[in-house]
This record gives sequence, C-alpha cells and structure tokens, in this order.
Amino acid sequence: MSDLRGGIDLGGTKIQTAVIDPDGNVKGEARRPTPTKGTPADVAAAMSEALVEAAQGAGAESGDLQGVGVGSPGDADEKTGVVSDARNLPGWEGSFPLGETLEKELGTKVHIGNDVQVATEAEFHLGAGKGFDSLIGVFWGTGVGGGLILGGKPWLGRGAAGEIGHMVIKRGGAKCPCGRRGCMEAYAGRKAMEEEAKRRHDDGHKTDLFKLMEKHEKPRLTSSIWGRAIDNGDKVATELIERAIEALGTGTASAINLLDPEAIIIGGGLGLRFGEHYIDALLTEMRKHVFFETMPEVKMASLGDLGGAVGASLLVSR
Amino acid sequence: MSDLRGGIDLGGTKIQTAVIDPDGNVKGEARRPTPTKGTPADVAAAMSEALVEAAQGAGAESGDLQGVGVGSPGDADEKTGVVSDARNLPGWEGSFPLGETLEKELGTKVHIGNDVQVATEAEFHLGAGKGFDSLIGVFWGTGVGGGLILGGKPWLGRGAAGEIGHMVIKRGGAKCPCGRRGCMEAYAGRKAMEEEAKRRHDDGHKTDLFKLMEKHEKPRLTSSIWGRAIDNGDKVATELIERAIEALGTGTASAINLLDPEAIIIGGGLGLRFGEHYIDALLTEMRKHVFFETMPEVKMASLGDLGGAVGASLLVSR
Repeated sequence: MSDLRGGIDLGGTKIQTAVIDPDGNVKGEARRPTPTKGTPADVAAAMSEALVEAAQGAGAESGDLQGVGVGSPGDADEKTGVVSDARNLPGWEGSFPLGETLEKELGTKVHIGNDVQVATEAEFHLGAGKGFDSLIGVFWGTGVGGGLILGGKPWLGRGAAGEIGHMVIKRGGAKCPCGRRGCMEAYAGRKAMEEEAKRRHDDGHKTDLFKLMEKHEKPRLTSSIWGRAIDNGDKVATELIERAIEALGTGTASAINLLDPEAIIIGGGLGLRFGEHYIDALLTEMRKHVFFETMPEVKMASLGDLGGAVGASLLVSR
Repeated sequence: MSDLRGGIDLGGTKIQTAVIDPDGNVKGEARRPTPTKGTPADVAAAMSEALVEAAQGAGAESGDLQGVGVGSPGDADEKTGVVSDARNLPGWEGSFPLGETLEKELGTKVHIGNDVQVATEAEFHLGAGKGFDSLIGVFWGTGVGGGLILGGKPWLGRGAAGEIGHMVIKRGGAKCPCGRRGCMEAYAGRKAMEEEAKRRHDDGHKTDLFKLMEKHEKPRLTSSIWGRAIDNGDKVATELIERAIEALGTGTASAINLLDPEAIIIGGGLGLRFGEHYIDALLTEMRKHVFFETMPEVKMASLGDLGGAVGASLLVSR
C-alpha cells in the first residue's frame, strides 16, 4: 500500500479530485463536470472515474491508496457514509449509500464528510488557517457555508454545525432558498443573488447580467459573469454584490460575537473571486457589529479550487 | 483548611454570595445591595462583607476557604484578576484589580470570571444542563448574555466568547445600549425595553409601567414591574415582551444554526420570570429559523438566583 490518500470534492458544478502525499502535496488531480441528469449512482460513477484518473496521475492504483475522503453537500453522515437531501445533485432528494458504493468501485476505505467543513480543515492544516487555534471558515458560493475549528479541532455539534449562511441578519427580511426569511444566504448566496437579479430585471431595471450569461453560454450567473458585469459598471450587479458584502459582514460579525475566534477564513467561488477586492468593505461592515475591540484576523482561503479535495483527503486520518 | 469554596455573583443590583461544599450544596449565603455610589473599592468592600457573612453561615472563616470565585460583569481578565469597563457599577469605567483586593481582605485565593459564563457552568455541572455535552446559556436580564459549553468544556474564545446579545437580528434595526444597531439585546434587554417603553409613553401611548414603578418605589422597570403590567393587560408592556421573545427566538436560532448544540438553557432575571410562561412562543420563533429538523432541548435554568454565586465558586477548581 502507498502512503498516498485520495480526496473528492463533490460540487454542484464539478467533481474535483486530488491525490496527496503525507505532507499535503498534490501528486495527481482530475475533474469531471457533475452530471446534471440521472441518479446518485451516475454521480458516484463520475466520482470514481475522476479519482482513478487522479491516482494514475500520481502513479498509483485507487486500491493502493490509504483511503479516500469525500466532501459532500447535503446531509452527509460520517458514520454510515450515507448522503441525503443533496438537492443540487440529480435525483438526490432521498438517501444514497455513497461511501459503500465508492468503496466497491475504488477498492479502498471511503470516508464521507461535509464539503464546507473539510475545506475549512484543509485551510486550518495546510492553508490560510495554519497556526490559529480557532477559526471560522466562511464559504461564499451558491450558498454560504461555514466550518468551525475550535481549540484546534473540528466542531461538528450534533453533526451539522456551521450553518453560518442561515444565521438571521434581518428578521422578516428576504426569502432564502432554504424557505426561511432573513438568512445571510438570502442576500449573499449566488443562487439568491441570481433570483433577485431576475426580479429586478423583470421589474425593468437595466442589467446586462443575463445577456452576458447567454453570450458566454453559461447555465447560470456564475462568479465570472458577475465579475464581467461589475467590470462593465452594471448597476444591478454592483448593487447586489455590495448588498451581499453587507450581509456577509453582518452575519460573520454575529458569529464572531458568539465565538470570539482568532481568525476568519473567506473561501468559496464568490469569496475567491471577490473577497480580496471587497475586503475593505467587508471589514467595515464587520466592524460595525463586532463587539470586541480587537478583530480576529480575516484572511482569504489560500488552497483555491483544490482546497475541497485536499480537505476531503484529510478525512482519511481524522 | 476546610473543603468549602466561596462564590460571589457581582450584579448591577445586588451582590449574592454563597459557600458550597464539594458536592455543590449551599452551606451559607448572604447578599448586599450593590453600592450605587462611590468607587470600585467600595464595591469590593461590600463583596468581602457579604462573603464573610456567608462563610460564617457555613461555620467557617473566609481564610479557611479553598478559594473564592467571582462572576463579574464588564471585561473580567481571568489571568490577572483585573476587571475593566463594568459600566453598571459605580466609578468602574476604568480598570480595578478586584482579585488582588479581595485576596487581601479575605485571606484566600480569589479567581475572577465572567458572570454569565460561570452561571452557564453552574447549570452545566449542577443544574438544568447536567448530562449534555454541549449547550448555550442565554441569560435574559438587563442585557442578554451568553455562555458556551462545547464538548463538555467552557468555550471562551480569545477570552470573551458568548456575546449572544450582540448577534445581529435586524440589520439597520433598533439602537442597542452598546451603541450598535440591530443586536438581539436592542429588543430583548431589560434596559433597551425600558427605553423603548419610555419613548412610546412620551409619544402618547397609554401604559401604566412607569406609574407601577413609582408606586412600588423601584428605580427602574424591574422584571416584577413588567410582570404586574402584563397581568393588568397593559398593551405597551405586552407588546414589548412579545417583541423581546421574537428577538430572543431569532438570535438563539442563529446561534443554534452555527453551533448545533444539544441544549439551550434560559436564565437571567427576565428569563426566570417570563421564560416558562412564554416558552411556546419562544419555541415557535426559534423553529421559524432553526435549520435542523431536530431542535436542541430548551430548558429553564434550575439554580435560580443562586446560580451565579454557585457557578463562581466552581472557578476555584477550574
């Protein structure tokens, strides 16, 4: 058996895999688009395929790996390897034994975890969170996910801690994709932002967001489409990103007031694209609401697109 | 030396002391009104006096105690015993070496901690929080304070975690006594509720709150005054308590979404008086915003008025 481990980041858009050595160096990687039709079994097949390719890139067979970790959306049960209610994936409203299925295909032990939590652990062990004893990972993408490290260890609560996107920032406020009102994600999540852009467009506000989406043949308003629109001075796009930053600053400040952590790590698709550019605005919003004189350190995630897969591989030794 | 320990709960209205045995049984207790004039030294003198009396009640000298713990408001530094910025206490805007001062007067080691955190620890070890691995204490009184137990241990963050009252529930909302906007405490804290009642009264809304306050010779709208007004069907009082319950439910739900704890313990002056009566309304508000299918258990603090002093005594062995 080799000393290599595999990691799979199962996203709504793509499946990213990586094979890493004991020091956290990426020795092989491969990706696949996430199937948009079919069943959970089709998604599992695409995951296996990509992981086998990543292992080959590292000069190994998947069966030789010490194990494979999976960062999964939905309700991922670490103990049973069952993933339920992954609504961004095809046919995955129910439960599917993802761990068991992958173990058969890959010939090695498979560990299932929450996608955002493992990305946070990756930043803590190998990325921007190195050296801190406590941190909150804020992953700004389609939704807004959170991961917690407290006292040097992951904090999972009863199993599902870190739902920072569903902290309420405005009682009675905007409808969230989760169905509740006033969540941070209702203002800052890419999906909610797209719905609000659509409403404003339908109400006659001028915006090129949807023209750009068609022109670049995207199925949705991706972070790159938002970026282009803002660069063009699109008013609706600019207003909605600024509104998102306000929401992120407010919700993150609430989390800081409760936990008083040493650091905040900002990641996710939108976080990686816009976090750096809007960092001053974000800090200004946070300072409006943080109760303490000394702010925690606020840093951008440093492992980029591979952070999720690398973090997933850490599940093998957790 | 005896096996008894002392605890002092330093409140804005009263100083409550207790002397307890190793099993947590209260062997002596005494209280004093908190001085409303003078300096921190005067407050420390009243604290010593009350603790000496509690020790006598337990058949001991203060110098024989294993140590004395203090649950303090303001910024209480556990390492140095210095308390700063305790704005509800006379002349205490700066820093005062409370631990050192009390050690000289009492002849035993003194440990300083945060008042709400030690009350949470008391409930965890001896009260309503027994048997849970993780809980959030929500102390609803003049302000709204929080204490955290995670993985069976206090979570203090960088030293000041638990500021649940300053989690934002309404961005751009009501002004909080802390100076910020939209905090849970801006709607639920007794002080903020009194200010809002005053505004409504001045605006011509009919309420007997201030008449009751004068009649019963209270310096402020105490929880008993709120209770009387509500029993009389006072509309302003009822609306403001219901508004407080909404805020508490929303903010507590946000904390649950972040930490996914096993239990919530509701305490504090208003919590002990109104928590039980409004528990259904509180749970309804929480359920509107809790992201998980299974709610944590929500229980009332069971140690009552003595919880703070008993919790403070636990600092001796922490």
